[in-house]
Amino acid sequence: KTVFYFVSGEKNAGFDLLYHNMKHGQIATKELAEFVRERAAIEETYSKSMSKLAKMASNGSPLGTFAPMWDLFRVSSDKLALCHLELMRKMNDLIRDINKYGDEQVKVHRKTKEEQVGTLDAVQAVQVQSGHLQKFREGYHAKCIELDRLRKEGAPQKELEKAEMKSKKSAESFAVCIEKYNRVGGDFEQKMSESAQKFQDIEEAHLRQMKQLIKGYSHSIEDTHVQVGQVHEEFKQNVENIGIDNLIQRFAEQKGTGKDKPALVGFEEYMTALVPEGSKKSRGKAFRIPGLGKRDKEPDST
Amino acid sequence: KTVFYFVSGEKNAGFDLLYHNMKHGQIATKELAEFVRERAAIEETYSKSMSKLAKMASNGSPLGTFAPMWDLFRVSSDKLALCHLELMRKMNDLIRDINKYGDEQVKVHRKTKEEQVGTLDAVQAVQVQSGHLQKFREGYHAKCIELDRLRKEGAPQKELEKAEMKSKKSAESFAVCIEKYNRVGGDFEQKMSESAQKFQDIEEAHLRQMKQLIKGYSHSIEDTHVQVGQVHEEFKQNVENIGIDNLIQRFAEQKGTGKDKPALVGFEEYMTALVPEGSKKSRGKAFRIPGLGKRDKEPDST
Repeated sequence: KTVFYFVSGEKNAGFDLLYHNMKHGQIATKELAEFVRERAAIEETYSKSMSKLAKMASNGSPLGTFAPMWDLFRVSSDKLALCHLELMRKMNDLIRDINKYGDEQVKVHRKTKEEQVGTLDAVQAVQVQSGHLQKFREGYHAKCIELDRLRKEGAPQKELEKAEMKSKKSAESFAVCIEKYNRVGGDFEQKMSESAQKFQDIEEAHLRQMKQLIKGYSHSIEDTHVQVGQVHEEFKQNVENIGIDNLIQRFAEQKGTGKDKPALVGFEEYMTALVPEGSKKSRGKAFRIPGLGKRDKEPDST
Repeated sequence: KTVFYFVSGEKNAGFDLLYHNMKHGQIATKELAEFVRERAAIEETYSKSMSKLAKMASNGSPLGTFAPMWDLFRVSSDKLALCHLELMRKMNDLIRDINKYGDEQVKVHRKTKEEQVGTLDAVQAVQVQSGHLQKFREGYHAKCIELDRLRKEGAPQKELEKAEMKSKKSAESFAVCIEKYNRVGGDFEQKMSESAQKFQDIEEAHLRQMKQLIKGYSHSIEDTHVQVGQVHEEFKQNVENIGIDNLIQRFAEQKGTGKDKPALVGFEEYMTALVPEGSKKSRGKAFRIPGLGKRDKEPDST
């Protein structure tokens, strides 16, 4: 459906308006590229911050039972950094696509400008003729008013006839001017109509392309959003999976706090070989002397 | 299940280890607060950048058919800014919770230190007694080796009896020492066992609390992630909903490019009232003179 004709208003500015609207398309393309560039920069900064956060997590104290949790924070933050870096890369790819389209757009506009020279001539012709029309109209009006005045004043017949002749001549000139204007106007109408359709086609193609580029923008952001969601879910799962028992157990094993209650070391260990009898004591549990018990020689079961 | 006893190794360092592990819990709490503070700062920066991006979108050229699209970018970026600002606020709330827990933790540790004085005494007693044991063991060993040597050398009976007496005396002293060591050790074992259980309880409560705080962290991030997803979806829908026809139409209405083909203005419009006959022309379409046609007075149908 054709909706572009020309603008009502002074000086048939419609052609200019449609032409400049087309040229504004180049501004829109540039601005979209700038917008996406800014977004890319934001994502890069976010990614770097996340890497810093990951580093902070990796510097978390290795002491204490909580220590293994820092690894989850580190991994998660590192993955988030990657997700946003990937988004930055996609935004940069998109900027290239936008710029490529921008270059094509400039070419199309240049070609269109050349093709529309005829319409521009017709516009100028109609503008010139419009000026004439105005002048003749005013002249004719003045003659009509003069004739009217003389009639009302009851002017002499000779004077009236002279004025009627002037009015008739003026009407004829005006009619010729209108005819010329209509001819020039008809040419303008046809050319302008074709140009308007051309401009509309260009505008539609432009908007189609811009929407396609925005779709790319949305799509990349959506992809990253899904990935980020997976990283969050993974982190949550990992936190849940590391039980408190598990953290305590890990620490106990790492530090060798022992799995079983230690036995007290009884006198007999030293005496049996040397003292034949007496002095022997029997205790259920023997306190172990550090560095002497058999347990000390057992390897850590990690 | 009890897994904390004391460390095998020199000097019964288990108590120190468990005590310091408890104290490391304070470091973990502080580090978690710092980590969340850093995350809050990252989210704040991101939010501010998104506001800047929204401003950039609102400064998008109002000329051309693409202009209304900038409003979608502006609204979307503004909403993203709000989502991340909200996350920053939640992170700040979480920091308050972490610090509050940190304060409670300090109190619990102070109280625990006081309660564990008895165990510390028992640790020191067993360390002293362990030293004695070592000394008496060496003394007894030396006597046994001496007695053995004399026997092998076939020393005189008197000398042997003297050495046997010395060995027996040394064995008795050693036995007394072992008995004392076992008594002190038994006391240590009981107290240490209770302390270990206490430290384990504290550690479990600490980890439970830390995991709860991390859950809060995850939950806030998840909430924001869902909101951000809605903003993205909304943006995508809005872009889809603004059809190309719609953008063209809007522009045409705004700029008044006209909905219908304009008619050429015929001579009759000027003549009918003034010229009784002749000169009248009838054309299907009349070219409209700007500023004169009826259409110009019609209000814009927006």
